[in-house]
Amino acid sequence: MPQSVPFDAWLRAELDTVESALSAWVPGTAPAGLGQAMRYGVLDGGKRLRPLLVLAAAQAVGGHREASLRAACAVELIHAYSLVHDDMPCMDNDVLRRGKPTVHVQFGEAQAMLAGDAMQALAFEVLTPDDGVPAALQAKLCSLLARSAGHAGMAGGQAIDLASVGVPLNEQALRDMHHRKTGALLQGSVLMGAACGDLPPAAWSALADYGDAVGLAFQVVDDILDVTQASETLGKTAGKDMDNNKPTYVSILGLPAARAHAEELRNKAQAALARSGIANVERLKVLADKVVERDN
Amino acid sequence: MPQSVPFDAWLRAELDTVESALSAWVPGTAPAGLGQAMRYGVLDGGKRLRPLLVLAAAQAVGGHREASLRAACAVELIHAYSLVHDDMPCMDNDVLRRGKPTVHVQFGEAQAMLAGDAMQALAFEVLTPDDGVPAALQAKLCSLLARSAGHAGMAGGQAIDLASVGVPLNEQALRDMHHRKTGALLQGSVLMGAACGDLPPAAWSALADYGDAVGLAFQVVDDILDVTQASETLGKTAGKDMDNNKPTYVSILGLPAARAHAEELRNKAQAALARSGIANVERLKVLADKVVERDN
Repeated sequence: MPQSVPFDAWLRAELDTVESALSAWVPGTAPAGLGQAMRYGVLDGGKRLRPLLVLAAAQAVGGHREASLRAACAVELIHAYSLVHDDMPCMDNDVLRRGKPTVHVQFGEAQAMLAGDAMQALAFEVLTPDDGVPAALQAKLCSLLARSAGHAGMAGGQAIDLASVGVPLNEQALRDMHHRKTGALLQGSVLMGAACGDLPPAAWSALADYGDAVGLAFQVVDDILDVTQASETLGKTAGKDMDNNKPTYVSILGLPAARAHAEELRNKAQAALARSGIANVERLKVLADKVVERDN
Repeated sequence: MPQSVPFDAWLRAELDTVESALSAWVPGTAPAGLGQAMRYGVLDGGKRLRPLLVLAAAQAVGGHREASLRAACAVELIHAYSLVHDDMPCMDNDVLRRGKPTVHVQFGEAQAMLAGDAMQALAFEVLTPDDGVPAALQAKLCSLLARSAGHAGMAGGQAIDLASVGVPLNEQALRDMHHRKTGALLQGSVLMGAACGDLPPAAWSALADYGDAVGLAFQVVDDILDVTQASETLGKTAGKDMDNNKPTYVSILGLPAARAHAEELRNKAQAALARSGIANVERLKVLADKVVERDN
């Protein structure tokens, strides 16, 4: 979409496109209720921040449209599967997500686990169509997504999270956890979008820094909202981290310093965009603002 | 390895190679115990049938060695993750696997779920190295693996399995379940090996038929062993399907007809190899024999 289209109009159009694509690619026909559980876990909900980062980054670099739309949906499938598994009784044991009963409450634990597993596989199916996307780009996107989602990224961060309940972490350890748990997939979203175009190393590295700062800012704001917002606004259980005795930026830094840290990360993100040398970064800039200014 | 090397020597050498490669690629360094749980779930155990099918098929077609070794390990990672999740209390609730306590017994349910999730991601990491494998082949292998593992394959079959406890299935419904649950990944192994070379469509289709027959034969024999072997021989809990009131080939056909069916599938597999027009199918032939003749 031309860069002249105002942000809000772009946002609405892209959200519709992503929703339609997800609805087409997440199969209601999967057997024995699996398809319904997968669709329940991924459709009609969420801010879709990761797909928007993919698409904004891809458009900033003039990237391959079909590839970027597939990458946007794949990254959201990974995010959605992680929520389904994270909500299960053996993990966070949460019953409310995006304002609805969680997948295991609705479909049972076994189906929730399988639906999450199938959503992860589907992410890689979506990235590897028979045609429409050059094979080298398919391979690059699979590589970025797998590494963002795996032991060095999201899953590794969740393992640290699991081990840190009731354990005092310092800010560095907390940052390391979030770099992996939330940051890796958010940064991966930006880089998957960037991979759809052709960037010099310096610009790639600047976008990596942008993704890193946005990823951490997202988590700091999450921790702030967990203590300042009601469950209805969040669409999930508020105060959960505090109740679970989990370390957060607010519990370690205090609320005012956590807010200041979020601002600092926003500035880092904007500075990275400024030095990227990429012309069309306006939408990425607004997305960073929205990450910090959101109230849910 | 040259086709002149006897089968048993080839088998031992390839098992060593696969074990070393898995040990190198499954990271003990993954944080907070995740790496140990992943290694526990995948190393030092199992028949490695899927990797052997990948490697035998790749060698039959003169395929890319590095790619085939990565494919062999990736498919085993998917198989191993499925066992970790399948053994959990919300699924089969099994405490013994490959003669050892299951992953959730050893590391807790949350870590087992995360280890399985990270193993699935790792499979796609292994398939997408920075160099050493042509990008188009990386993409093709990711495509085959994702589709074998996902809703239309293994995960879909597990959903049917879950829904079929205590439900009378006829042979066709049972076959459909196993086509997906076990067959898809076994057939996928053969096709991933085949994809490492360059085959005409008729040979590809013959190998697909071979993989299909071997996949079903494997399950029929599994059902036979479940009632005829002790837990110590199997390295897992015997009589489990019967106890769980799950439909099996033995419960539907009876033991003599199940045995005859396994023979019939072996013949189908060998016939497919014979018509493939591929010269070096001897190891694939022996693997089909071993699937039917095994006692664990």
